[in-house]
Amino acid sequence: MTPDLDPALAAIAGLLGKRLNRTTADRAVHGTSETHFKDALPDAVAYPETTAEVAGIALICARHHVPMVGWGIGSSLEGHALPVRGGISVDFSLMNKVLGVQPENMLAVVQPGVTREALNNALRATGLFFPVDPGANATLGGMASTRASGTTAVRYGTMRDNVRALEVVLADGRVIRTGTAAPKSSAGYDLTALFVGAEGTLGLITELTLKLQGQPDAISAAVCAFGDFAGAVDAVIATIQSGIPMARIEFVDEATARAFNLYSGASLPEKPHLMVEFHGSDSAVAEQAAAFGDIATEFGAEGFQWASRPEDRSALWSMRHKAFYATMALRPGATALVTDICVPIARLAEAVEETRNDIARASIPGPIVGHVGDGNFHCTLLIEPGNAAELAEAKALAARMNDRALRLGGTVTGEHGVGMGKMPYMRAEHGQGWDVMASIKRALDPENLMNPGKMVQIN
Amino acid sequence: MTPDLDPALAAIAGLLGKRLNRTTADRAVHGTSETHFKDALPDAVAYPETTAEVAGIALICARHHVPMVGWGIGSSLEGHALPVRGGISVDFSLMNKVLGVQPENMLAVVQPGVTREALNNALRATGLFFPVDPGANATLGGMASTRASGTTAVRYGTMRDNVRALEVVLADGRVIRTGTAAPKSSAGYDLTALFVGAEGTLGLITELTLKLQGQPDAISAAVCAFGDFAGAVDAVIATIQSGIPMARIEFVDEATARAFNLYSGASLPEKPHLMVEFHGSDSAVAEQAAAFGDIATEFGAEGFQWASRPEDRSALWSMRHKAFYATMALRPGATALVTDICVPIARLAEAVEETRNDIARASIPGPIVGHVGDGNFHCTLLIEPGNAAELAEAKALAARMNDRALRLGGTVTGEHGVGMGKMPYMRAEHGQGWDVMASIKRALDPENLMNPGKMVQIN
Repeated sequence: MTPDLDPALAAIAGLLGKRLNRTTADRAVHGTSETHFKDALPDAVAYPETTAEVAGIALICARHHVPMVGWGIGSSLEGHALPVRGGISVDFSLMNKVLGVQPENMLAVVQPGVTREALNNALRATGLFFPVDPGANATLGGMASTRASGTTAVRYGTMRDNVRALEVVLADGRVIRTGTAAPKSSAGYDLTALFVGAEGTLGLITELTLKLQGQPDAISAAVCAFGDFAGAVDAVIATIQSGIPMARIEFVDEATARAFNLYSGASLPEKPHLMVEFHGSDSAVAEQAAAFGDIATEFGAEGFQWASRPEDRSALWSMRHKAFYATMALRPGATALVTDICVPIARLAEAVEETRNDIARASIPGPIVGHVGDGNFHCTLLIEPGNAAELAEAKALAARMNDRALRLGGTVTGEHGVGMGKMPYMRAEHGQGWDVMASIKRALDPENLMNPGKMVQIN
Repeated sequence: MTPDLDPALAAIAGLLGKRLNRTTADRAVHGTSETHFKDALPDAVAYPETTAEVAGIALICARHHVPMVGWGIGSSLEGHALPVRGGISVDFSLMNKVLGVQPENMLAVVQPGVTREALNNALRATGLFFPVDPGANATLGGMASTRASGTTAVRYGTMRDNVRALEVVLADGRVIRTGTAAPKSSAGYDLTALFVGAEGTLGLITELTLKLQGQPDAISAAVCAFGDFAGAVDAVIATIQSGIPMARIEFVDEATARAFNLYSGASLPEKPHLMVEFHGSDSAVAEQAAAFGDIATEFGAEGFQWASRPEDRSALWSMRHKAFYATMALRPGATALVTDICVPIARLAEAVEETRNDIARASIPGPIVGHVGDGNFHCTLLIEPGNAAELAEAKALAARMNDRALRLGGTVTGEHGVGMGKMPYMRAEHGQGWDVMASIKRALDPENLMNPGKMVQIN
């Protein structure tokens, strides 16, 4: 059905007043992505404050056949929140409250607009923390919707593992709750897992119950350089296979080390590095660090720098978290195409090596970083905006990486999600499973109003 | 549509030959459950050997509108596999091969009829094991379909956390693969999580890729008694909240201790007990055991018996695994209604206490055991077969437990699944989420042929 925009906007304005914004400036903010995708502006931006308002927006949009697309903080790298068919951007920035913390159950209940840093600040006095750490200070609603992970997933899992329950507004305005506060359940289809990673195509998440972790008694972090990338990657594989419970194990290549030096004032040798962290009791951390040190040394690690003081660790991980911006700064004015493949750990070395060889032959730079303990790594391909030849070259490199991931038994996206960029690979990864996804989408959103044009192919 | 049974049976017999069994004896085996539910016989039992045969059965059943119900080993406690609308029992006992073990990726690929003990026997030489341990020697297909867990979930998670990928035959005979061998993915709806716990109502699982764990360097187990149940339960809550990474922490009440003495030749005092296990390095296990010992002693634990030798641990957990049969033997000839609530850890004490008070006032016995580290416990209500008054009393007790679980923020089934027994509580637990489950069911199985009458209400 054709969207009937004017009455929808009038009704939503009646619901939200000034919290429906139709200015070109605000539409432009919500029509732009962090990476190379073409702008696509919403017709208006809604700023709900309550679940009831989100449900009202959904009811109005359903009645008038208007698309609705959730917006967290815009840190997606795959153009998830671009309203490619127009409609309403539902911006959750005013739904940014930590609704409750239950230290006794190790749970927090939050609105979707809370960022991970805001949540961890709110938890500081409790001795607990929320572990999922994608680098960007993303919102928890956005992180759930893309099934985000990051540096700590090797130890604490991804959003799949750390969302206990959800409240969701469906395409027809119904509000449902999925999951309970209990640690496990066998009561029916796992709707929580269905909405986590659904990228707003099945519903809009309006509340999350999140699992928390106890702050470890001891934390120790280190960075070390390797003579060649193969030594670094092989050290990772051996470390994971040995069962050392790494809290973080991150790979950065020599180009990224250079970017860190320029952007964060580091003084790393321009070599491949591993950045690692250990969590546990004092003795456990010492044991883990020694075991890792032995393996790393065997594979050629040198120049270990240990960071046991909190401020040193902060500096280390802040540098890592800014990797995307540091890399972007290597080519001023550039935009990026960021790849995100993930392979079984035993295939990591060949996946990285083939990718490095591709990049070495390319005309555009593509520094590599990776959450390699999970078999996941990214290549940030830096391209000149508007340069069609460079974009085509970047897409060809990404396509080869994605094909490689599937050939090696992996996935085209470890943590960034499908968005716009991975749609062309869904059939190859899922086969007829992609049709099953479309069946589920049709069942829950028969008019295809929730983030249309993403995730599945309908119409 | 009315099932057109005869041509379906003829066609399946044409596909499987003697591996389609229509004898009354075999139908009776597949029409009976472990607990109090009424028998419901299939029209025939099919024994496929390959995924292609399962797909063939599904195609034939779809064409002739005949229900199909998966069968593992029949250890479900909620009547999951009872073909309440007749049709074909698809018995996976011939699909019992471990298809591959990838120690380097810590993965195993198995057919659905492999039991957890058979898998762990096959893994013995690798230094790896599959951790999910529901007690019964269930099949892995059945465990996935009920989202099983058991004694080790407190450390290693449930089937939700330990199934990496699946092959599934859909209601229309299509064969799909969900997930990949990579440790994580953000590529679309989490179909693996959707089929895990779907109890065969959305598809028949024909292959599972499972996550394995490294055998810990050291294992230590212990059992200790408490003067009263409250001390035992409070010790559990304090232990979990302290963050000690328990590998197992099991509660058994005084009636169960008595059952162990009678059935397994134990000589436990007839008091509440905790049975615990620690996994890790030598020093980590020693540290964890000491920390737990301090907490338990503070709450009145006495008579610690440590089991560090493998044969002593085996005896300890074998006794625990036989708890269901030991309890059944307390009332010879009885059948059982087994409850399965799970609550947030901080509400465990009141959940157990209210339940104990209910049981104390009842006319039927109801020993309590629990995977209490997860907030999950069971009450095995022993009733005389055919005694309507006792069945009604058991159902009333179970109803009060289920209401209690929901009031305390929990779930009516922590690990046994919905089956026949939890259908009356699905609306109360899920509200309109239950309608969403029905929408998904209709989308994937529009004729309602896969385990009809379970999970959702259709027709």
